Amino acid sequence: MKEFIEKAHTLVEALPYIQKLYGKTVVIKYGGAAMLDENLTEKILQDITLLSVVGMKPIVVHGGGKDINKMLDKLEIEPKFIDGLRVTDEETMSVVQMMLAGSINKDIAAKLCGLGAKGIGLCGKDANLIKAKKLESKNGADYGCVGQVTEVNTKLLNLLTSDEYIPVIAPIGTDDEGNTYNINADTVAAEVAAALASEKLIFLTDIDGIRSDPKDPETRIHAINEQEIKDLIKSGVIDGGMLPKVDGCIKALDSGVNRTHILNGVIEHPILLEIFTDSGIGTMVCK
Amino acid sequence: MKEFIEKAHTLVEALPYIQKLYGKTVVIKYGGAAMLDENLTEKILQDITLLSVVGMKPIVVHGGGKDINKMLDKLEIEPKFIDGLRVTDEETMSVVQMMLAGSINKDIAAKLCGLGAKGIGLCGKDANLIKAKKLESKNGADYGCVGQVTEVNTKLLNLLTSDEYIPVIAPIGTDDEGNTYNINADTVAAEVAAALASEKLIFLTDIDGIRSDPKDPETRIHAINEQEIKDLIKSGVIDGGMLPKVDGCIKALDSGVNRTHILNGVIEHPILLEIFTDSGIGTMVCK
Amino acid sequence: MKEFIEKAHTLVEALPYIQKLYGKTVVIKYGGAAMLDENLTEKILQDITLLSVVGMKPIVVHGGGKDINKMLDKLEIEPKFIDGLRVTDEETMSVVQMMLAGSINKDIAAKLCGLGAKGIGLCGKDANLIKAKKLESKNGADYGCVGQVTEVNTKLLNLLTSDEYIPVIAPIGTDDEGNTYNINADTVAAEVAAALASEKLIFLTDIDGIRSDPKDPETRIHAINEQEIKDLIKSGVIDGGMLPKVDGCIKALDSGVNRTHILNGVIEHPILLEIFTDSGIGTMVCK
Amino acid sequence: MKEFIEKAHTLVEALPYIQKLYGKTVVIKYGGAAMLDENLTEKILQDITLLSVVGMKPIVVHGGGKDINKMLDKLEIEPKFIDGLRVTDEETMSVVQMMLAGSINKDIAAKLCGLGAKGIGLCGKDANLIKAKKLESKNGADYGCVGQVTEVNTKLLNLLTSDEYIPVIAPIGTDDEGNTYNINADTVAAEVAAALASEKLIFLTDIDGIRSDPKDPETRIHAINEQEIKDLIKSGVIDGGMLPKVDGCIKALDSGVNRTHILNGVIEHPILLEIFTDSGIGTMVCK
Amino acid sequence: MKEFIEKAHTLVEALPYIQKLYGKTVVIKYGGAAMLDENLTEKILQDITLLSVVGMKPIVVHGGGKDINKMLDKLEIEPKFIDGLRVTDEETMSVVQMMLAGSINKDIAAKLCGLGAKGIGLCGKDANLIKAKKLESKNGADYGCVGQVTEVNTKLLNLLTSDEYIPVIAPIGTDDEGNTYNINADTVAAEVAAALASEKLIFLTDIDGIRSDPKDPETRIHAINEQEIKDLIKSGVIDGGMLPKVDGCIKALDSGVNRTHILNGVIEHPILLEIFTDSGIGTMVCK
Amino acid sequence: MKEFIEKAHTLVEALPYIQKLYGKTVVIKYGGAAMLDENLTEKILQDITLLSVVGMKPIVVHGGGKDINKMLDKLEIEPKFIDGLRVTDEETMSVVQMMLAGSINKDIAAKLCGLGAKGIGLCGKDANLIKAKKLESKNGADYGCVGQVTEVNTKLLNLLTSDEYIPVIAPIGTDDEGNTYNINADTVAAEVAAALASEKLIFLTDIDGIRSDPKDPETRIHAINEQEIKDLIKSGVIDGGMLPKVDGCIKALDSGVNRTHILNGVIEHPILLEIFTDSGIGTMVCK
Repeated sequence: MKEFIEKAHTLVEALPYIQKLYGKTVVIKYGGAAMLDENLTEKILQDITLLSVVGMKPIVVHGGGKDINKMLDKLEIEPKFIDGLRVTDEETMSVVQMMLAGSINKDIAAKLCGLGAKGIGLCGKDANLIKAKKLESKNGADYGCVGQVTEVNTKLLNLLTSDEYIPVIAPIGTDDEGNTYNINADTVAAEVAAALASEKLIFLTDIDGIRSDPKDPETRIHAINEQEIKDLIKSGVIDGGMLPKVDGCIKALDSGVNRTHILNGVIEHPILLEIFTDSGIGTMVCK
Repeated sequence: MKEFIEKAHTLVEALPYIQKLYGKTVVIKYGGAAMLDENLTEKILQDITLLSVVGMKPIVVHGGGKDINKMLDKLEIEPKFIDGLRVTDEETMSVVQMMLAGSINKDIAAKLCGLGAKGIGLCGKDANLIKAKKLESKNGADYGCVGQVTEVNTKLLNLLTSDEYIPVIAPIGTDDEGNTYNINADTVAAEVAAALASEKLIFLTDIDGIRSDPKDPETRIHAINEQEIKDLIKSGVIDGGMLPKVDGCIKALDSGVNRTHILNGVIEHPILLEIFTDSGIGTMVCK
Repeated sequence: MKEFIEKAHTLVEALPYIQKLYGKTVVIKYGGAAMLDENLTEKILQDITLLSVVGMKPIVVHGGGKDINKMLDKLEIEPKFIDGLRVTDEETMSVVQMMLAGSINKDIAAKLCGLGAKGIGLCGKDANLIKAKKLESKNGADYGCVGQVTEVNTKLLNLLTSDEYIPVIAPIGTDDEGNTYNINADTVAAEVAAALASEKLIFLTDIDGIRSDPKDPETRIHAINEQEIKDLIKSGVIDGGMLPKVDGCIKALDSGVNRTHILNGVIEHPILLEIFTDSGIGTMVCK
Repeated sequence: MKEFIEKAHTLVEALPYIQKLYGKTVVIKYGGAAMLDENLTEKILQDITLLSVVGMKPIVVHGGGKDINKMLDKLEIEPKFIDGLRVTDEETMSVVQMMLAGSINKDIAAKLCGLGAKGIGLCGKDANLIKAKKLESKNGADYGCVGQVTEVNTKLLNLLTSDEYIPVIAPIGTDDEGNTYNINADTVAAEVAAALASEKLIFLTDIDGIRSDPKDPETRIHAINEQEIKDLIKSGVIDGGMLPKVDGCIKALDSGVNRTHILNGVIEHPILLEIFTDSGIGTMVCK
Repeated sequence: MKEFIEKAHTLVEALPYIQKLYGKTVVIKYGGAAMLDENLTEKILQDITLLSVVGMKPIVVHGGGKDINKMLDKLEIEPKFIDGLRVTDEETMSVVQMMLAGSINKDIAAKLCGLGAKGIGLCGKDANLIKAKKLESKNGADYGCVGQVTEVNTKLLNLLTSDEYIPVIAPIGTDDEGNTYNINADTVAAEVAAALASEKLIFLTDIDGIRSDPKDPETRIHAINEQEIKDLIKSGVIDGGMLPKVDGCIKALDSGVNRTHILNGVIEHPILLEIFTDSGIGTMVCK
Repeated sequence: MKEFIEKAHTLVEALPYIQKLYGKTVVIKYGGAAMLDENLTEKILQDITLLSVVGMKPIVVHGGGKDINKMLDKLEIEPKFIDGLRVTDEETMSVVQMMLAGSINKDIAAKLCGLGAKGIGLCGKDANLIKAKKLESKNGADYGCVGQVTEVNTKLLNLLTSDEYIPVIAPIGTDDEGNTYNINADTVAAEVAAALASEKLIFLTDIDGIRSDPKDPETRIHAINEQEIKDLIKSGVIDGGMLPKVDGCIKALDSGVNRTHILNGVIEHPILLEIFTDSGIGTMVCK
């Protein structure tokens, strides 16, 4: 009976969140370590399916670093990075597109289908979903086909989410000249969330959120606002791969996203626990 | 962390049920001991609110025995029963209507509103919701204004549930001559469920379901079909107040209701636990 | 043939009014002497049914003074009044609710159904139809559970009237803490009309409208505006039970109601005659 | 006050008819003597406007004999008749079309607009409203461009009546070769009513309905069925211009029209009185 | 094969225009010499049908000068003109109405139907399509029933074009007193286009557009703006029957029409060639 | 002027086809030599865009043989064929998916977008678009991951085509166990067309249709029915890569597709010329 009471309490605890988030859009950036572990992947996709089941509108944006590198290796194309961004020549770009839009993307969509959800794999080249332009670097460096988002086709996303499809988006953009761009997945997630004025933007990362001491997991910050983030960037506490995430958070908040979350993707069911429990498990960033 | 995992598992366990029951109608007969305890009442109304929140269409049919008797007492009108049915003269009928439709019914609706749901209190006299006729007794006894259902106005119920209102129905009927009838609440619940071809009909009672030995709670039957019920009636195992409930179950199944449930209303959150867990806590009756 | 010509003329006279009022909302406060006479009641409910039949959207708000007093008598609860308002303790409130929402309200709805209309009985506790707070008295008197309207749930009323239901509203309100309030029915009618920006607000009273000499029926005023009403209040011509009616009229006009009417409910078919004939039979109040 | 009571009774008497006929289609054949008198014309068009105002869907089919003859006279074209049907050569046909579709038809539509209705003048050549073929005569006579209906474009009529337009139809047909046909207006009215499965088909004629003795107005038959009509035709009581009317009635009833009426168009407001009073003023033909 | 390539190129050339004009309203003034030649008429009506087929919403406004004069001749009514406008007494007006609305209008509608389009013949008296008033002349001359447009009933036109009907409009107006007005067809076309904020207004005339030297067809101007037109009027290059056309063009542009065109109606398929080819065949007037 | 007349004639010739095919679904199998030539590709995609522009609902199914082989070469995976079908082990399957769904598919979608159409790239793994099972070979051979279609998700296709998106489908299927299947593109095109009961199914191939002498282009058959095809198969005239195409044609016709076409993709604008000209340029197969 005690077990029943706890089950009931969990369902009751989730109630106000399910109620409040009904019909709301939630953009999830999925990547990193969680992606490499099949068990974790399934747990995360179950979470996303559950969001859809209870009436929310999840949208997945994924990365794909390691698989792309393996394929470039096999094809004997050497990857290059500047400032933490992959330099993408045309040959590399075509491999990136194949891997992101043809392999990783479709496999995520198919796994969502296997769980009873209606995953549908898209990239920015579908119906001009993500219009982009060449990334302007601050230091004059040429990143090749690396792009930045100029426009998101929200009509297609709204059509699909209104009919309970879950868009799965590979971070590839295009322009009117037909060029293809490789775009940072965190940035794409933030831009999509901003364009849709989403309720939530969730980054699944390899750590438990923002820490006041990056090396000490015990120093995780539960909730943080824009000003506090800027201070942490200035003091160097937030840097590296966390930078585009928090930039994305702030840009998204400024563009009308209500809440952003940074979670550890290697916890089982991280999204459910962050969204449907009172305490949460990551860092929530708000205005 | 273990607590988090259990919470996550509870949510995941509930997933396929939430998915399967989306948009489905669930008629709940609410009465008996659970109604007398404010704490239990709140738990049950939380359950009903949750069903609505996750996209189901709950409809409540309630009884009200003890409060009516108290008021009849105060007014010095003596209640009479034949065959377990209240004999209802016109004076009694007007008190029954006042108490059921004006007091108990509206308070349930208001409590649902307090939980964020859109409860709306109705009786059979609203828009001809429940058309009835005088109950024909087998033995020639005259039960007065006691009635039986002849027709349910499903249009009104569909209009309201489609817009997420939760109809709360007092078991009072009417006919074309403007007579008012007191009707057994179990029967009304069964007729409403049948008229709507509901997915589920749930009876909240004072015991944990059907027992093969009525006096031994350990002999609860988890699932039972029509034939088995008929056998138990013949052998006298099922009798008394359980009879209209199982009759209602069978009639409802015959009329297109998919599943019926008999639950103990004094367990906390009985509806959530029966619907959203694999094991359940009562007796499910199916074809 | 002369009879035919008169019938034809009556229908033709009604034509521009029927045309002009198609689809418009008309709130009718029904109470007083008319309510006590079954024949008059039927005539008034026929009128309301006819409004619905020709495409208008009537909404009924009713009082219920005498029946409540009788029941309080029977239950040996003594009614108290301050400044013409019933002081309502909790015990009294529960009797008021029973009588208004369970007895009078449902009987009006049922009678409308008997005439072919789709009457549906509601009170402020249904889906938060009427949110209220404790009435603040000017002189520090405590009226108990007597309330004043803070908000009207127009969504529910629009849903119902769009589908040709006729809402019948008992003047009971509620707040977020679950308290119940007894509210003056005239005030509720005026607030409902204002919230819906109704075309018309009609008060059925015991006299033929506003009189320049309250004791002389011959001095009835056919049409009057706000300023003239204020003058009559100042000079004491309008006072007593007429005050909340004209206050309601003015508040309603200020909130967007187009026309308000004060009619004598003891004339047969008062609403038809006021609305569908050129001369009318009461007092029309406009800006 | 007596006058008020009579007005109220007239409105109340009309109530069940207005209720029953809401949204129903009523086809009215308008022609003969009533058409020649401007006062009668206005009364009839007021009636038709009223039908529309209270939610019915009137459709007018008109004739136009005398005006056409006057114009043929002026143009020195001699009219010819065989078996009571105008023989229509091409020159005559073009005058008939001009007069019916360009003069009479548009003037009726405009007068309806002047009364606040949305009259719209059409003939069979508009959007293939009335497809026709050459009338086959029994005796080999050639009536020229005289036609019979083969198909009615109910889509156009439904589009217009759903938006409260009142189609006014000149009895002219067309075929796939672009020929134009003059068709008996009674027949067109009957075919339109049949194609739409109208509730009512009303013929406005010069007499008070069917009489058992055609010369004695006192012998008017109030209600008659198909078999009785056939008997009266056999016995020669019904003949001449009444024949296509009763034929139209019977054909219409056989094709799904519910009720047909033959009225005297020279009574003021004949349609209102027939439809909205218990006794009526003409002959109703039913199955 | 060369022929195939040319066909393909024509279709491909038309592509962006078909795409750009989908769902757009195009008002076509049809009259003059083209109307007198059956072969040209068919080509023009084919063009209009094609516009409808590829998703545009054509509306036809027609004139009818010569046929009216013939009929006035036959009826021995002498036509009179002042300032190029027909003086229209009531007798003449009734002949004009008959010919325009009953003969020419219906024949155009019927021919469109013969080509598979859904032509529907209307004049300003249908549902108050064109409200008008007496034309005020500058010099005090009385043109009789000659009118000018005061209002266009766009609701009716939108209802019909949304369901793929092609309104064919005779240039006759009406007022609230029931008067009938003869209106210049060019003006009606311009007013209809302005009221609908049409994409295009096309005048089919007897010359190839505006010429800088009216006598030299080689001097046709391909595109011209408002200021240039005003200069040509001032210098007398544009005058006579071209004046109401260019006035209509400018008024239409000022009222929100996007483009106006003046074409030679005696070229085969002039509308298709102007709209669907890059070079066009007439004069386009824009802001 | 002659050029104008020819342009006009081409547009007029296309008219009845555009009219007849409005809103109809056309499935196009695109592959082979045409795919290798950028100029031809653009012409074909222009054709498909035009179909969409004039209101048809095109769906593209593409193959991709040579690019896949090149990539397998680069990755040093050796392709194997049995009975003309690629034997697909899991490693090969993942390369096939990448190339088809990630490279070729997305590039077609992007090129359609560049032409103003709303191309959207999908494979069978998106929302279970193509459910499949392992291909059963007649001779016991194991083709590995080669599959056959068991079900097509028409809901997704209808959602997208109703909003003017052009689905571009890579011929990859999936099953409930999450397996991926490589499916013959001709077969997928035929199954999609059958599931949608398409108006047309078009195969773009490397020859001008079916020839009675495969080696002589002059012997092309313009139109052929099922029986005649069966005869040609029996006599060996139809064999090789043409077999799945004619099988697909017949299966599609049997399943409710109205017309199928086999065209030479290396003619410029083959689809426009086949669909919008009277003579066509390929072989039409009908029942």
